[in-house]
Amino acid sequence: MAKPLILDGSRVAEATNQKTMQRVEKLREHGVIPCLATILVGDNPASETYVRMKGKMCERLGMKSLRIHLPEETTTEELCQQIVELNQNPEVHGILLQHPVPSQINERKAFDTIAIEKDVDGVTSWGFGQVSMGFGQFPSCTPAGIIGILDYYQIPIEGAHAVVIGRSPILGKPVAMLLLERNATVTICHSKTLDLPSCLRMADIVVAAVGKPHFVQGDWIKPGAVVIDAGYNEGNVGDVDFESCSKVAGAITPVPGGPGPVTISYLMKHTVDSAERRV
Amino acid sequence: MAKPLILDGSRVAEATNQKTMQRVEKLREHGVIPCLATILVGDNPASETYVRMKGKMCERLGMKSLRIHLPEETTTEELCQQIVELNQNPEVHGILLQHPVPSQINERKAFDTIAIEKDVDGVTSWGFGQVSMGFGQFPSCTPAGIIGILDYYQIPIEGAHAVVIGRSPILGKPVAMLLLERNATVTICHSKTLDLPSCLRMADIVVAAVGKPHFVQGDWIKPGAVVIDAGYNEGNVGDVDFESCSKVAGAITPVPGGPGPVTISYLMKHTVDSAERRV
Repeated sequence: MAKPLILDGSRVAEATNQKTMQRVEKLREHGVIPCLATILVGDNPASETYVRMKGKMCERLGMKSLRIHLPEETTTEELCQQIVELNQNPEVHGILLQHPVPSQINERKAFDTIAIEKDVDGVTSWGFGQVSMGFGQFPSCTPAGIIGILDYYQIPIEGAHAVVIGRSPILGKPVAMLLLERNATVTICHSKTLDLPSCLRMADIVVAAVGKPHFVQGDWIKPGAVVIDAGYNEGNVGDVDFESCSKVAGAITPVPGGPGPVTISYLMKHTVDSAERRV
Repeated sequence: MAKPLILDGSRVAEATNQKTMQRVEKLREHGVIPCLATILVGDNPASETYVRMKGKMCERLGMKSLRIHLPEETTTEELCQQIVELNQNPEVHGILLQHPVPSQINERKAFDTIAIEKDVDGVTSWGFGQVSMGFGQFPSCTPAGIIGILDYYQIPIEGAHAVVIGRSPILGKPVAMLLLERNATVTICHSKTLDLPSCLRMADIVVAAVGKPHFVQGDWIKPGAVVIDAGYNEGNVGDVDFESCSKVAGAITPVPGGPGPVTISYLMKHTVDSAERRV
Protein backbone atom coordinates (compact mmCIF):
# COMPACT_ATOMS: atom_id res chain seq x y z
CA MET A 1 0.00 0.00 0.00
CA ALA A 2 0.98 3.59 -0.53
CA LYS A 3 1.63 5.59 2.61
CA PRO A 4 -1.57 7.06 4.06
CA LEU A 5 -2.37 10.74 4.11
CA ILE A 6 -1.51 12.04 7.59
CA LEU A 7 -4.38 14.17 8.86
CA ASP A 8 -2.49 16.81 10.78
CA GLY A 9 -4.73 18.18 13.52
CA SER A 10 -2.22 20.91 14.39
CA ARG A 11 -2.59 22.36 10.90
CA VAL A 12 -6.37 22.34 11.16
CA ALA A 13 -6.16 23.92 14.60
CA GLU A 14 -3.85 26.64 13.33
CA ALA A 15 -6.16 27.51 10.44
CA THR A 16 -9.10 27.69 12.84
CA ASN A 17 -7.15 29.77 15.35
CA GLN A 18 -6.14 32.27 12.68
CA LYS A 19 -9.77 32.95 11.84
CA THR A 20 -10.70 33.12 15.52
CA MET A 21 -7.95 35.65 16.18
CA GLN A 22 -9.29 37.97 13.48
CA ARG A 23 -12.77 37.74 14.95
CA VAL A 24 -11.42 38.50 18.43
CA GLU A 25 -9.73 41.60 17.06
CA LYS A 26 -13.02 42.83 15.60
CA LEU A 27 -14.80 42.17 18.88
CA ARG A 28 -12.17 44.10 20.82
CA GLU A 29 -12.77 47.06 18.53
CA HIS A 30 -16.34 46.94 19.80
CA GLY A 31 -15.09 46.84 23.37
CA VAL A 32 -15.87 43.15 23.87
CA ILE A 33 -13.22 40.71 25.01
CA PRO A 34 -14.38 37.12 24.63
CA CYS A 35 -13.93 35.37 27.96
CA LEU A 36 -13.80 31.67 28.75
CA ALA A 37 -14.28 30.64 32.37
CA THR A 38 -12.67 27.34 33.31
CA ILE A 39 -13.52 25.43 36.45
CA LEU A 40 -11.09 22.91 37.86
CA VAL A 41 -12.11 20.85 40.86
CA GLY A 42 -9.31 19.19 42.81
CA ASP A 43 -5.67 18.67 41.99
CA ASN A 44 -5.45 16.15 39.18
CA PRO A 45 -2.16 17.12 37.50
CA ALA A 46 -3.32 16.16 33.99
CA SER A 47 -6.46 18.27 34.43
CA GLU A 48 -4.35 21.17 35.70
CA THR A 49 -2.26 20.92 32.55
CA TYR A 50 -5.32 20.93 30.28
CA VAL A 51 -6.80 23.95 32.03
CA ARG A 52 -3.49 25.78 31.80
CA MET A 53 -3.27 25.01 28.07
CA LYS A 54 -6.73 26.46 27.55
CA GLY A 55 -5.83 29.59 29.50
CA LYS A 56 -2.68 30.05 27.44
CA MET A 57 -4.57 29.61 24.20
CA CYS A 58 -7.06 32.30 25.27
CA GLU A 59 -4.14 34.61 25.89
CA ARG A 60 -2.57 33.82 22.53
CA LEU A 61 -5.80 34.60 20.68
CA GLY A 62 -6.39 37.86 22.53
CA MET A 63 -9.15 36.47 24.70
CA LYS A 64 -9.65 36.57 28.45
CA SER A 65 -9.77 33.55 30.68
CA LEU A 66 -11.19 33.33 34.15
CA ARG A 67 -9.80 30.42 36.10
CA ILE A 68 -11.80 29.04 38.99
CA HIS A 69 -10.06 26.42 41.10
CA LEU A 70 -12.19 24.61 43.67
CA PRO A 71 -10.93 22.22 46.37
CA GLU A 72 -11.02 18.44 45.94
CA GLU A 73 -13.83 18.09 48.53
CA THR A 74 -16.24 20.47 46.73
CA THR A 75 -19.85 19.25 46.78
CA THR A 76 -22.19 19.11 43.79
CA GLU A 77 -24.19 21.97 45.31
CA GLU A 78 -21.13 24.18 45.75
CA LEU A 79 -19.98 23.47 42.21
CA CYS A 80 -23.44 24.20 40.80
CA GLN A 81 -23.60 27.43 42.79
CA GLN A 82 -20.30 28.47 41.19
CA ILE A 83 -21.66 27.61 37.74
CA VAL A 84 -24.80 29.66 38.36
CA GLU A 85 -22.64 32.67 39.23
CA LEU A 86 -20.76 32.28 35.98
CA ASN A 87 -24.04 31.89 34.09
CA GLN A 88 -25.07 35.27 35.49
CA ASN A 89 -21.75 37.00 34.94
CA PRO A 90 -22.17 39.12 31.79
CA GLU A 91 -18.42 39.22 31.17
CA VAL A 92 -18.23 35.44 30.77
CA HIS A 93 -19.09 34.07 27.31
CA GLY A 94 -18.22 30.44 27.76
CA ILE A 95 -17.93 28.00 30.66
CA LEU A 96 -15.77 24.90 30.69
CA LEU A 97 -15.96 22.43 33.55
CA GLN A 98 -12.80 20.35 33.36
CA HIS A 99 -13.56 16.69 33.73
CA PRO A 100 -13.23 14.22 35.26
CA VAL A 101 -14.52 15.76 38.49
CA PRO A 102 -13.99 14.10 41.89
CA SER A 103 -16.25 11.12 42.47
CA GLN A 104 -18.53 12.73 45.08
CA ILE A 105 -19.76 15.17 42.44
CA ASN A 106 -22.75 14.47 40.21
CA GLU A 107 -21.04 15.41 36.96
CA ARG A 108 -24.20 15.26 34.87
CA LYS A 109 -26.00 17.63 37.22
CA ALA A 110 -23.05 20.01 37.11
CA PHE A 111 -22.85 19.90 33.32
CA ASP A 112 -26.58 20.49 32.96
CA THR A 113 -26.35 23.53 35.24
CA ILE A 114 -24.32 25.36 32.59
CA ALA A 115 -26.51 27.86 30.72
CA ILE A 116 -26.98 26.59 27.18
CA GLU A 117 -25.82 29.90 25.65
CA LYS A 118 -22.51 29.54 27.50
CA ASP A 119 -22.10 25.79 26.96
CA VAL A 120 -19.20 26.26 24.55
CA ASP A 121 -17.78 22.83 25.42
CA GLY A 122 -21.03 21.13 24.38
CA VAL A 123 -21.65 19.11 27.54
CA THR A 124 -25.29 19.84 28.40
CA SER A 125 -27.93 17.27 27.55
CA TRP A 126 -30.02 20.03 26.01
CA GLY A 127 -27.16 21.12 23.80
CA PHE A 128 -26.68 17.53 22.72
CA GLY A 129 -30.37 17.31 21.85
CA GLN A 130 -30.24 20.48 19.80
CA VAL A 131 -27.11 19.37 17.96
CA SER A 132 -28.78 16.02 17.26
CA MET A 133 -31.79 17.83 15.79
CA GLY A 134 -29.50 19.88 13.56
CA PHE A 135 -29.72 23.32 15.16
CA GLY A 136 -27.41 23.20 18.16
CA GLN A 137 -24.98 26.10 18.55
CA PHE A 138 -22.11 24.34 20.24
CA PRO A 139 -21.44 20.68 19.55
CA SER A 140 -18.91 19.06 21.89
CA CYS A 141 -15.48 20.26 20.88
CA THR A 142 -13.71 17.02 20.01
CA PRO A 143 -16.57 15.88 17.75
CA ALA A 144 -16.69 19.33 16.15
CA GLY A 145 -12.92 19.13 15.67
CA ILE A 146 -13.18 15.71 14.02
CA ILE A 147 -15.64 17.09 11.48
CA GLY A 148 -13.28 20.05 11.09
CA ILE A 149 -10.40 17.71 10.23
CA LEU A 150 -12.49 15.78 7.69
CA ASP A 151 -13.62 19.03 6.07
CA TYR A 152 -10.14 20.55 6.03
CA TYR A 153 -8.83 17.53 4.14
CA GLN A 154 -11.96 17.45 1.96
CA ILE A 155 -12.86 13.93 2.94
CA PRO A 156 -16.42 13.24 1.76
CA ILE A 157 -18.79 12.42 4.61
CA GLU A 158 -22.12 12.16 2.77
CA GLY A 159 -22.86 8.58 1.85
CA ALA A 160 -19.81 7.27 3.69
CA HIS A 161 -20.27 4.55 6.26
CA ALA A 162 -18.84 5.89 9.51
CA VAL A 163 -18.23 3.55 12.41
CA VAL A 164 -17.79 5.16 15.81
CA ILE A 165 -16.26 3.06 18.57
CA GLY A 166 -17.40 4.42 21.90
CA ARG A 167 -20.59 6.07 23.11
CA SER A 168 -19.59 8.61 25.72
CA PRO A 169 -21.82 11.69 26.17
CA ILE A 170 -19.22 14.13 24.88
CA LEU A 171 -17.44 12.08 22.27
CA GLY A 172 -18.98 8.93 20.82
CA LYS A 173 -22.62 9.99 20.87
CA PRO A 174 -22.19 13.55 19.59
CA VAL A 175 -19.70 12.62 16.86
CA ALA A 176 -22.19 9.98 15.68
CA MET A 177 -24.93 12.60 15.50
CA LEU A 178 -22.72 15.10 13.67
CA LEU A 179 -21.71 12.49 11.10
CA LEU A 180 -25.37 11.55 10.69
CA GLU A 181 -26.28 15.21 10.21
CA ARG A 182 -23.70 15.29 7.43
CA ASN A 183 -25.45 12.33 5.77
CA ALA A 184 -23.09 9.52 6.70
CA THR A 185 -24.52 6.12 7.46
CA VAL A 186 -23.47 5.71 11.08
CA THR A 187 -22.77 2.66 13.22
CA ILE A 188 -22.09 3.02 16.95
CA CYS A 189 -20.03 0.22 18.48
CA HIS A 190 -18.99 -0.18 22.11
CA SER A 191 -17.91 -2.63 24.78
CA LYS A 192 -20.97 -4.84 24.24
CA THR A 193 -20.49 -5.10 20.48
CA LEU A 194 -19.99 -8.76 19.72
CA ASP A 195 -17.98 -8.64 16.50
CA LEU A 196 -16.18 -5.34 16.29
CA PRO A 197 -13.82 -6.30 13.45
CA SER A 198 -16.76 -7.16 11.14
CA CYS A 199 -18.36 -3.83 11.94
CA LEU A 200 -15.13 -1.96 11.31
CA ARG A 201 -14.57 -3.68 8.01
CA MET A 202 -17.61 -1.85 6.61
CA ALA A 203 -16.26 1.54 7.61
CA ASP A 204 -15.15 4.20 5.18
CA ILE A 205 -14.52 6.39 8.22
CA VAL A 206 -13.48 4.99 11.60
CA VAL A 207 -13.64 7.15 14.73
CA ALA A 208 -11.96 5.48 17.68
CA ALA A 209 -13.11 6.96 20.99
CA VAL A 210 -12.96 3.99 23.25
CA GLY A 211 -10.17 4.75 25.73
CA LYS A 212 -8.11 1.61 25.19
CA PRO A 213 -4.48 2.12 24.14
CA HIS A 214 -3.51 0.74 20.70
CA PHE A 215 -6.89 -0.98 20.49
CA VAL A 216 -7.83 -0.76 16.80
CA GLN A 217 -5.78 -3.16 14.70
CA GLY A 218 -4.78 -2.79 11.08
CA ASP A 219 -6.40 -6.04 10.00
CA TRP A 220 -9.77 -4.84 11.33
CA ILE A 221 -10.06 -1.96 8.91
CA LYS A 222 -10.92 -1.74 5.24
CA PRO A 223 -8.05 -0.81 2.91
CA GLY A 224 -8.21 2.89 2.21
CA ALA A 225 -10.39 3.75 5.20
CA VAL A 226 -10.06 7.10 6.98
CA VAL A 227 -9.02 6.50 10.59
CA ILE A 228 -9.56 9.17 13.24
CA ASP A 229 -7.97 8.43 16.58
CA ALA A 230 -9.80 10.38 19.27
CA GLY A 231 -8.33 8.24 22.04
CA TYR A 232 -6.70 9.86 24.99
CA ASN A 233 -4.78 7.39 27.07
CA GLU A 234 -2.00 7.78 29.59
CA GLY A 235 1.38 8.58 28.13
CA ASN A 236 -0.15 10.31 25.08
CA VAL A 237 -1.16 7.02 23.50
CA GLY A 238 -4.16 6.76 21.17
CA ASP A 239 -6.83 4.11 20.69
CA VAL A 240 -5.46 3.16 17.30
CA ASP A 241 -2.49 0.94 16.70
CA PHE A 242 -0.87 3.44 14.37
CA GLU A 243 1.80 1.10 13.07
CA SER A 244 -0.53 -1.60 11.75
CA CYS A 245 -3.38 0.75 10.79
CA SER A 246 -1.20 3.17 8.83
CA LYS A 247 -0.30 0.28 6.52
CA VAL A 248 -3.96 -0.18 5.56
CA ALA A 249 -5.63 3.21 6.01
CA GLY A 250 -6.00 5.77 3.24
CA ALA A 251 -5.75 8.60 5.77
CA ILE A 252 -5.04 8.63 9.48
CA THR A 253 -4.58 11.03 12.37
CA PRO A 254 -1.36 10.85 14.38
CA VAL A 255 -1.16 10.90 18.20
CA PRO A 256 -0.29 13.47 19.34
CA GLY A 257 -1.43 15.95 16.73
CA GLY A 258 -4.83 14.49 15.83
CA PRO A 259 -8.14 15.75 17.20
CA GLY A 260 -6.42 17.02 20.39
CA PRO A 261 -5.27 20.47 19.23
CA VAL A 262 -8.41 20.97 17.13
CA THR A 263 -10.53 20.40 20.24
CA ILE A 264 -8.99 23.43 21.94
CA SER A 265 -9.31 25.55 18.84
CA TYR A 266 -13.04 24.75 18.64
CA LEU A 267 -13.45 25.64 22.30
CA MET A 268 -11.99 29.05 21.48
CA LYS A 269 -14.10 29.40 18.34
CA HIS A 270 -17.29 28.59 20.25
CA THR A 271 -16.44 31.13 22.95
CA VAL A 272 -16.04 33.77 20.25
CA ASP A 273 -19.31 32.66 18.61
CA SER A 274 -20.98 33.19 21.97
CA ALA A 275 -19.38 36.62 22.44
CA GLU A 276 -20.46 37.70 18.95
CA ARG A 277 -24.05 36.80 19.75
CA ARG A 278 -23.89 39.20 22.69
CA VAL A 279 -22.76 42.21 20.62
CA MET B 1 -38.38 -21.40 6.87
CA ALA B 2 -40.76 -21.84 9.77
CA LYS B 3 -43.39 -19.17 10.12
CA PRO B 4 -42.11 -16.13 12.02
CA LEU B 5 -43.31 -15.15 15.46
CA ILE B 6 -45.89 -12.39 15.02
CA LEU B 7 -45.11 -9.56 17.43
CA ASP B 8 -48.61 -8.45 18.32
CA GLY B 9 -48.52 -4.81 19.35
CA SER B 10 -52.14 -4.87 20.48
CA ARG B 11 -51.29 -7.47 23.11
CA VAL B 12 -48.37 -5.40 24.38
CA ALA B 13 -50.58 -2.30 24.44
CA GLU B 14 -53.28 -4.11 26.38
CA ALA B 15 -50.80 -5.34 29.01
CA THR B 16 -49.45 -1.79 29.37
CA ASN B 17 -52.94 -0.30 29.55
CA GLN B 18 -53.98 -2.71 32.30
CA LYS B 19 -51.14 -1.55 34.51
CA THR B 20 -51.83 2.10 33.68
CA MET B 21 -55.47 1.70 34.61
CA GLN B 22 -54.57 0.38 38.07
CA ARG B 23 -52.25 3.34 38.60
CA VAL B 24 -54.96 5.76 37.51
CA GLU B 25 -57.30 4.22 40.06
CA LYS B 26 -54.78 4.79 42.86
CA LEU B 27 -54.25 8.38 41.75
CA ARG B 28 -57.99 9.03 41.76
CA GLU B 29 -58.11 7.80 45.36
CA HIS B 30 -55.69 10.64 46.09
CA GLY B 31 -57.95 13.06 44.24
CA VAL B 32 -55.72 13.32 41.19
CA ILE B 33 -57.04 12.62 37.72
CA PRO B 34 -54.22 12.31 35.16
CA CYS B 35 -54.95 14.69 32.32
CA LEU B 36 -53.54 14.75 28.79
CA ALA B 37 -53.97 17.94 26.78
CA THR B 38 -53.99 17.45 23.02
CA ILE B 39 -53.52 20.27 20.55
CA LEU B 40 -54.76 19.92 17.01
CA VAL B 41 -54.03 22.69 14.52
CA GLY B 42 -56.13 22.71 11.38
CA ASP B 43 -58.47 20.15 9.92
CA ASN B 44 -56.37 17.26 8.67
CA PRO B 45 -58.83 14.35 8.91
CA ALA B 46 -56.16 11.76 9.78
CA SER B 47 -54.86 14.01 12.58
CA GLU B 48 -58.42 14.49 13.85
CA THR B 49 -58.81 10.73 14.00
CA TYR B 50 -55.55 10.28 15.93
CA VAL B 51 -56.50 12.97 18.43
CA ARG B 52 -59.93 11.42 18.89
CA MET B 53 -58.35 7.99 19.48
CA LYS B 54 -56.14 9.46 22.18
CA GLY B 55 -59.10 11.17 23.85
CA LYS B 56 -61.05 7.92 23.83
CA MET B 57 -58.15 6.00 25.31
CA CYS B 58 -57.89 8.55 28.14
CA GLU B 59 -61.56 7.99 28.85
CA ARG B 60 -61.19 4.21 28.80
CA LEU B 61 -58.33 4.33 31.30
CA GLY B 62 -60.14 6.69 33.68
CA MET B 63 -58.07 9.73 32.68
CA LYS B 64 -59.11 13.20 31.62
CA SER B 65 -58.36 14.71 28.26
CA LEU B 66 -58.39 18.36 27.34
CA ARG B 67 -58.80 18.91 23.61
CA ILE B 68 -57.58 22.15 22.12
CA HIS B 69 -58.48 22.73 18.49
CA LEU B 70 -56.83 25.70 16.77
CA PRO B 71 -57.64 27.04 13.29
CA GLU B 72 -55.56 26.15 10.22
CA GLU B 73 -54.10 29.69 10.04
CA THR B 74 -52.71 29.68 13.60
CA THR B 75 -49.26 31.30 13.85
CA THR B 76 -46.25 29.88 15.65
CA GLU B 77 -46.62 32.58 18.30
CA GLU B 78 -50.28 31.79 18.91
CA LEU B 79 -49.55 28.10 19.16
CA CYS B 80 -46.63 28.68 21.55
CA GLN B 81 -48.83 30.94 23.67
CA GLN B 82 -51.37 28.13 23.94
CA ILE B 83 -48.61 25.70 24.92
CA VAL B 84 -47.34 28.09 27.61
CA GLU B 85 -50.85 28.23 29.09
CA LEU B 86 -50.97 24.45 29.24
CA ASN B 87 -47.49 24.38 30.77
CA GLN B 88 -48.82 26.60 33.56
CA ASN B 89 -52.11 24.76 34.03
CA PRO B 90 -51.65 22.59 37.15
CA GLU B 91 -54.45 20.23 36.09
CA VAL B 92 -52.61 19.22 32.92
CA HIS B 93 -49.98 16.49 33.31
CA GLY B 94 -49.06 15.89 29.69
CA ILE B 95 -49.16 17.85 26.44
CA LEU B 96 -49.38 16.36 22.98
CA LEU B 97 -49.06 18.52 19.90
CA GLN B 98 -50.49 16.50 17.03
CA HIS B 99 -48.23 16.64 14.04
CA PRO B 100 -47.82 17.43 11.24
CA VAL B 101 -48.77 21.06 11.88
CA PRO B 102 -49.61 23.47 9.02
CA SER B 103 -46.57 24.62 7.08
CA GLN B 104 -46.52 28.23 8.37
CA ILE B 105 -45.75 26.93 11.86
CA ASN B 106 -42.22 26.38 13.14
CA GLU B 107 -42.85 22.90 14.50
CA ARG B 108 -39.50 22.64 16.26
CA LYS B 109 -40.10 25.89 18.12
CA ALA B 110 -43.56 24.71 19.13
CA PHE B 111 -42.28 21.33 20.31
CA ASP B 112 -39.49 22.94 22.31
CA THR B 113 -41.99 25.24 24.03
CA ILE B 114 -43.52 22.25 25.80
CA ALA B 115 -42.31 22.10 29.42
CA ILE B 116 -40.04 19.10 29.79
CA GLU B 117 -41.99 17.71 32.74
CA LYS B 118 -45.13 17.63 30.56
CA ASP B 119 -43.42 16.39 27.38
CA VAL B 120 -45.07 12.98 27.60
CA ASP B 121 -44.84 12.50 23.83
CA GLY B 122 -41.05 12.95 23.91
CA VAL B 123 -40.73 15.67 21.28
CA THR B 124 -38.51 18.31 22.92
CA SER B 125 -34.85 18.46 21.98
CA TRP B 126 -33.99 18.60 25.66
CA GLY B 127 -35.98 15.45 26.36
CA PHE B 128 -34.20 13.76 23.48
CA GLY B 129 -30.85 14.79 24.95
CA GLN B 130 -31.76 13.44 28.36
CA VAL B 131 -33.02 10.16 26.93
CA SER B 132 -29.81 9.87 24.91
CA MET B 133 -27.78 10.37 28.08
CA GLY B 134 -29.75 7.64 29.80
CA PHE B 135 -31.84 9.63 32.28
CA GLY B 136 -34.75 11.03 30.28
CA GLN B 137 -38.21 10.62 31.73
CA PHE B 138 -40.24 10.42 28.55
CA PRO B 139 -38.74 8.95 25.41
CA SER B 140 -40.79 9.46 22.26
CA CYS B 141 -43.74 7.10 22.41
CA THR B 142 -43.22 5.00 19.28
CA PRO B 143 -39.57 4.29 20.15
CA ALA B 144 -40.58 3.49 23.73
CA GLY B 145 -43.28 1.21 22.36
CA ILE B 146 -40.80 -0.59 20.11
CA ILE B 147 -38.60 -1.36 23.11
CA GLY B 148 -41.78 -2.41 24.93
CA ILE B 149 -42.59 -4.92 22.17
CA LEU B 150 -39.07 -6.37 22.19
CA ASP B 151 -39.16 -6.71 25.98
CA TYR B 152 -42.65 -8.21 26.03
CA TYR B 153 -41.53 -10.94 23.64
CA GLN B 154 -38.21 -11.30 25.49
CA ILE B 155 -36.13 -10.54 22.45
CA PRO B 156 -32.55 -9.90 23.57
CA ILE B 157 -31.31 -6.43 22.71
CA GLU B 158 -27.88 -6.41 24.36
CA GLY B 159 -25.18 -7.38 21.88
CA ALA B 160 -27.65 -7.49 18.97
CA HIS B 161 -26.88 -5.46 15.88
CA ALA B 162 -29.87 -3.19 15.36
CA VAL B 163 -30.27 -1.34 12.08
CA VAL B 164 -32.65 1.62 12.10
CA ILE B 165 -33.85 2.91 8.74
CA GLY B 166 -34.82 6.54 9.13
CA ARG B 167 -33.54 9.39 11.27
CA SER B 168 -36.53 11.52 12.17
CA PRO B 169 -36.45 13.46 15.44
CA ILE B 170 -39.22 11.46 17.08
CA LEU B 171 -38.68 8.02 15.59
CA GLY B 172 -35.38 7.06 13.97
CA LYS B 173 -33.04 9.05 16.19
CA PRO B 174 -34.65 8.27 19.54
CA VAL B 175 -35.18 4.57 18.81
CA ALA B 176 -31.49 4.37 17.88
CA MET B 177 -30.52 5.97 21.19
CA LEU B 178 -32.83 3.69 23.19
CA LEU B 179 -31.41 0.59 21.49
CA LEU B 180 -27.89 1.89 22.18
CA GLU B 181 -28.81 2.48 25.82
CA ARG B 182 -29.85 -1.18 25.94
CA ASN B 183 -26.43 -2.17 24.65
CA ALA B 184 -27.26 -2.97 21.04
CA THR B 185 -24.74 -2.12 18.36
CA VAL B 186 -26.70 0.42 16.33
CA THR B 187 -26.54 1.46 12.69
CA ILE B 188 -28.62 4.37 11.42
CA CYS B 189 -29.43 4.26 7.70
CA HIS B 190 -31.38 6.81 5.67
CA SER B 191 -32.02 8.21 2.23
CA LYS B 192 -28.32 8.91 1.63
CA THR B 193 -27.20 5.41 2.58
CA LEU B 194 -25.53 3.95 -0.46
CA ASP B 195 -26.00 0.23 0.06
CA LEU B 196 -28.96 -0.33 2.31
CA PRO B 197 -29.32 -4.08 1.64
CA SER B 198 -25.71 -4.75 2.80
CA CYS B 199 -26.38 -2.79 5.98
CA LEU B 200 -29.61 -4.63 6.62
CA ARG B 201 -28.02 -8.00 6.12
CA MET B 202 -25.99 -7.45 9.31
CA ALA B 203 -29.09 -6.72 11.37
CA ASP B 204 -30.38 -8.96 14.12
CA ILE B 205 -33.07 -6.33 14.67
CA VAL B 206 -34.44 -4.13 11.88
CA VAL B 207 -36.50 -1.04 12.68
CA ALA B 208 -38.10 0.43 9.57
CA ALA B 209 -39.12 4.04 10.08
CA VAL B 210 -38.65 5.47 6.64
CA GLY B 211 -42.12 6.35 5.40
CA LYS B 212 -42.02 4.39 2.16
CA PRO B 213 -44.75 1.80 1.64
CA HIS B 214 -43.60 -1.85 1.34
CA PHE B 215 -39.97 -0.63 1.16
CA VAL B 216 -37.99 -3.30 3.02
CA GLN B 217 -37.66 -6.47 0.96
CA GLY B 218 -37.31 -10.01 2.23
CA ASP B 219 -34.06 -10.63 0.39
CA TRP B 220 -32.46 -7.67 2.18
CA ILE B 221 -32.75 -9.16 5.64
CA LYS B 222 -30.84 -11.86 7.46
CA PRO B 223 -32.70 -15.11 8.04
CA GLY B 224 -34.14 -15.10 11.53
CA ALA B 225 -33.94 -11.32 11.99
CA VAL B 226 -36.49 -9.47 14.10
CA VAL B 227 -38.33 -6.96 11.92
CA ILE B 228 -40.19 -4.02 13.47
CA ASP B 229 -42.30 -2.04 11.05
CA ALA B 230 -42.79 1.48 12.42
CA GLY B 231 -43.93 2.78 9.07
CA TYR B 232 -47.09 4.77 8.80
CA ASN B 233 -48.15 5.27 5.23
CA GLU B 234 -51.47 6.13 3.69
CA GLY B 235 -54.01 3.32 3.67
CA ASN B 236 -52.53 1.72 6.80
CA VAL B 237 -49.55 0.35 4.89
CA GLY B 238 -46.20 -0.21 6.58
CA ASP B 239 -42.60 0.28 5.45
CA VAL B 240 -41.96 -3.45 5.34
CA ASP B 241 -43.01 -5.76 2.56
CA PHE B 242 -44.66 -8.18 4.96
CA GLU B 243 -45.16 -10.96 2.46
CA SER B 244 -41.52 -11.35 1.47
CA CYS B 245 -40.05 -10.42 4.87
CA SER B 246 -42.24 -12.81 6.83
CA LYS B 247 -40.71 -15.68 4.86
CA VAL B 248 -37.24 -14.77 6.15
CA ALA B 249 -37.72 -13.05 9.51
CA GLY B 250 -37.66 -14.86 12.82
CA ALA B 251 -40.18 -12.38 14.25
CA ILE B 252 -42.12 -9.54 12.68
CA THR B 253 -44.73 -6.93 13.57
CA PRO B 254 -47.93 -6.80 11.51
CA VAL B 255 -49.48 -3.60 10.14
CA PRO B 256 -51.86 -2.65 11.60
CA GLY B 257 -51.22 -3.99 15.08
CA GLY B 258 -47.47 -3.31 15.38
CA PRO B 259 -45.98 -0.31 17.18
CA GLY B 260 -49.14 1.77 16.51
CA PRO B 261 -51.31 0.71 19.47
CA VAL B 262 -48.29 0.52 21.80
CA THR B 263 -47.48 4.14 20.97
CA ILE B 264 -50.80 5.31 22.40
CA SER B 265 -50.44 3.12 25.46
CA TYR B 266 -47.02 4.67 26.20
CA LEU B 267 -48.49 8.14 25.80
CA MET B 268 -51.00 7.24 28.50
CA LYS B 269 -48.35 5.62 30.69
CA HIS B 270 -46.13 8.70 30.45
CA THR B 271 -49.04 10.98 31.38
CA VAL B 272 -49.67 8.89 34.47
CA ASP B 273 -45.92 8.90 35.28
CA SER B 274 -46.09 12.68 35.14
CA ALA B 275 -49.20 12.83 37.34
CA GLU B 276 -47.62 10.52 39.93
CA ARG B 277 -44.61 12.81 40.17
CA ARG B 278 -46.95 15.63 41.13
CA VAL B 279 -48.58 13.75 44.06
